[in-house]
Amino acid sequence: MTALERYDLPVSAIPKRWYNVLPDLPRGLDDYLHPVTREPVGQEFMERLLPKALVAQETSTDRWIAIPEEVRAAYRLWRPTPLYRATALERHLDTPAEIYFKYEGSSPSGSHKLNSALAQAYYAGLEGVDRLVTDTGAGQWGSALSMACSLFGIKALVYMVRASFQSKPYRRHLMETFGQQVLPSPGPHTDFGRALLADTPDHPGSEATAVSEALETVRLNAGDRFSMGAFANHVLLHQTVIGLETREQLEEIGKQPDFLVASVGCGSNLGGFVFPFVGDKLAGAQIGILAAEPAACPTLTAGEYRYDFADAGGLGPMTRTYTLGHEFVPPPIHSGGLRYHGAAPLVGLARHEGLLDARAYAQKEVFEAGTLFARLHGLLPAPETAHTVRATIELAEECRRQRRRAVIVFCYSGHGLLDLGAYGSFNAGEMADTEPYECTLAAGDPALAGLTGR
Amino acid sequence: MTALERYDLPVSAIPKRWYNVLPDLPRGLDDYLHPVTREPVGQEFMERLLPKALVAQETSTDRWIAIPEEVRAAYRLWRPTPLYRATALERHLDTPAEIYFKYEGSSPSGSHKLNSALAQAYYAGLEGVDRLVTDTGAGQWGSALSMACSLFGIKALVYMVRASFQSKPYRRHLMETFGQQVLPSPGPHTDFGRALLADTPDHPGSEATAVSEALETVRLNAGDRFSMGAFANHVLLHQTVIGLETREQLEEIGKQPDFLVASVGCGSNLGGFVFPFVGDKLAGAQIGILAAEPAACPTLTAGEYRYDFADAGGLGPMTRTYTLGHEFVPPPIHSGGLRYHGAAPLVGLARHEGLLDARAYAQKEVFEAGTLFARLHGLLPAPETAHTVRATIELAEECRRQRRRAVIVFCYSGHGLLDLGAYGSFNAGEMADTEPYECTLAAGDPALAGLTGR
Repeated sequence: MTALERYDLPVSAIPKRWYNVLPDLPRGLDDYLHPVTREPVGQEFMERLLPKALVAQETSTDRWIAIPEEVRAAYRLWRPTPLYRATALERHLDTPAEIYFKYEGSSPSGSHKLNSALAQAYYAGLEGVDRLVTDTGAGQWGSALSMACSLFGIKALVYMVRASFQSKPYRRHLMETFGQQVLPSPGPHTDFGRALLADTPDHPGSEATAVSEALETVRLNAGDRFSMGAFANHVLLHQTVIGLETREQLEEIGKQPDFLVASVGCGSNLGGFVFPFVGDKLAGAQIGILAAEPAACPTLTAGEYRYDFADAGGLGPMTRTYTLGHEFVPPPIHSGGLRYHGAAPLVGLARHEGLLDARAYAQKEVFEAGTLFARLHGLLPAPETAHTVRATIELAEECRRQRRRAVIVFCYSGHGLLDLGAYGSFNAGEMADTEPYECTLAAGDPALAGLTGR
Repeated sequence: MTALERYDLPVSAIPKRWYNVLPDLPRGLDDYLHPVTREPVGQEFMERLLPKALVAQETSTDRWIAIPEEVRAAYRLWRPTPLYRATALERHLDTPAEIYFKYEGSSPSGSHKLNSALAQAYYAGLEGVDRLVTDTGAGQWGSALSMACSLFGIKALVYMVRASFQSKPYRRHLMETFGQQVLPSPGPHTDFGRALLADTPDHPGSEATAVSEALETVRLNAGDRFSMGAFANHVLLHQTVIGLETREQLEEIGKQPDFLVASVGCGSNLGGFVFPFVGDKLAGAQIGILAAEPAACPTLTAGEYRYDFADAGGLGPMTRTYTLGHEFVPPPIHSGGLRYHGAAPLVGLARHEGLLDARAYAQKEVFEAGTLFARLHGLLPAPETAHTVRATIELAEECRRQRRRAVIVFCYSGHGLLDLGAYGSFNAGEMADTEPYECTLAAGDPALAGLTGR
């Protein structure tokens, strides 16, 4: 029984530079607009919001940005991560396709989120920031930032979506064990939170309300800076360690990817995983890029490409990307990390330019895929990652029908050990399904033509 | 900031043989006795209980036993595991000691338990066993065996201590996601369980009741075999991959261990970690071996060395080892993996022969140590592992007082992501402490003399 093969890189192969996709895209990003004036935001506005080094990265057009040695040293805790070949899944699907996956679940915080959290905590510490203030949904990002701030000796304040704060105490306990502060959103600590609660005392909160409370807190405390777990260019930049390592691992085993698959909430694991291959693609390599998203929050498959706010209260900059509207409140699915109304602007631009395509999946088919994968490979995917597995299975089945020996590589963004309540509900047959999906947008990536499936 | 250093081995360095300590110990184990006749058990009795290959390993006096290629292939999922140097902890303690730890937390089941589970599931599958039946406390072992049985395509039935079954559903969900059956113990499915419940309807169960129910089930079903997560020689044998890798990693960086530290419930992580060093020790190397156990269940520090049963109902063989009595019901501490009345016979013998020493720790000091470690290193230890961290800190502090540049190596047996309820209770100041510990036994290991501490 060889359920899978593993391809490692030595510690010395941890990337020395992050890859910035911006200069390689067919066109640049539209300006971020000031929430009040609707004029392009200036450096001063951004530097009040974020550590200066991150503002510089946010707008940089340098293709390569050096990773500080201190951040690389922290990456050594678990990086480079393994690339696996999922031979048991291939056999189970009886597909001629080869299926590989990049495993980010060995991160001590449980997901890829730590790749950016460590960088952000490092720069914040270097610039004498007192405290990083952030939002979290199910808690993956909040856990990663709490851990990173603990390692670099600074404080973190995490606004956690109230529904998760109450129903999923484990990740809150984790953040508090790292010595950090966690508050429910909406809550009584900000004007924005108080106003929401006055209107709706049992408001469940959303990522967008938590962002607004974090932004308000930062505005009122000179030593605070805001921290994002996705969306911003600099976050996707930090995540490119995933794709850079994957690219090297595939080269070492002499494989060219035909398809890259990742789930998308905002797009931090997707962007980090696929952007390092975009240069190859623009140079003519036939690489189909597929984003898997929940039918309950189908940003890339049903959203509009337009200017919108990233937060419910409209306190932060406006950006142009795919959005379901900043007041959209997704239904309470179990993939907390995918419940966000907008795509990262870089991911939105890539979709708009036809560099990637997206499919949306209903909740039960996602948990079926996650369960199958766990039984075959002994690795329990986070619900977010289970979307990726679902999309990969769909591609592999299409390859079987077409007798195509494609190389499919997917990003295993995180493990599901803190999502076992959701699997328990699925096992017990108590999980509500989401509506079947209908794509309202034109297909994006031509490299996926002929593999439409639905 | 270099909080730690990591020392990896290539996949090719996964051990090809397990190390059997038995032929190297100063004397052999006392016979296992039949529960009724009190005569040494025969092969037939054992082979009705366990897969034949495991019976052969249980009594083997071969120093080296080949690891089947299929098991090594499964180990590739995450092995070899890293050895880390905990430089941040050294700095925090201001100790001249060097502190290293072998990290078993990257196992997909979350702990070292998978090392034996994969071997047991492999042999069971090879011999056509229908189903492995086992007991689990908090669920670490049950999770590992469920996963392993899923990978090797056989069934598992897990009797889970009722208190954990009801209060800690996450690991139960995990086992069920792997397609395996989990029943509370005591429960209505066995005579033994029904009798206990008739007497005490709200009986919380213990490992020892779950073992009895598993043994009764196996006796009644010809295709079933019993599976143990600790205690037996063959389990400790499988776990020696931990120590064998550690030994190679230390050799590669030119370090000789002065102290080895591991927690002990039954002794599977302890035995697997330290036994490969016992030969060095018997050949004259000054290596102190310290077992850390809970004050609430102080088997090696306050137990008696005598014949006893491994299960509450007295259905299995009797063995000679340290025991608190097979009817001992430990108080409900959070380290479920350490709540067992007896030590593995090999660990008991090693303690009896002065090859290792033990210290017991109260619950709060253990969680303090676990929290400190998490903040310094970003890794959240399981409560069992937090005992090891506590003992390591005590040794390192003694080294500071004695200005001794010792090399301390501990076994990080598993992560605490499924134990966050316990950390939450600790964070909230709601954790009950256990009684301070008083050792009633003479010190064991002379290599620990002068480092008594308490």
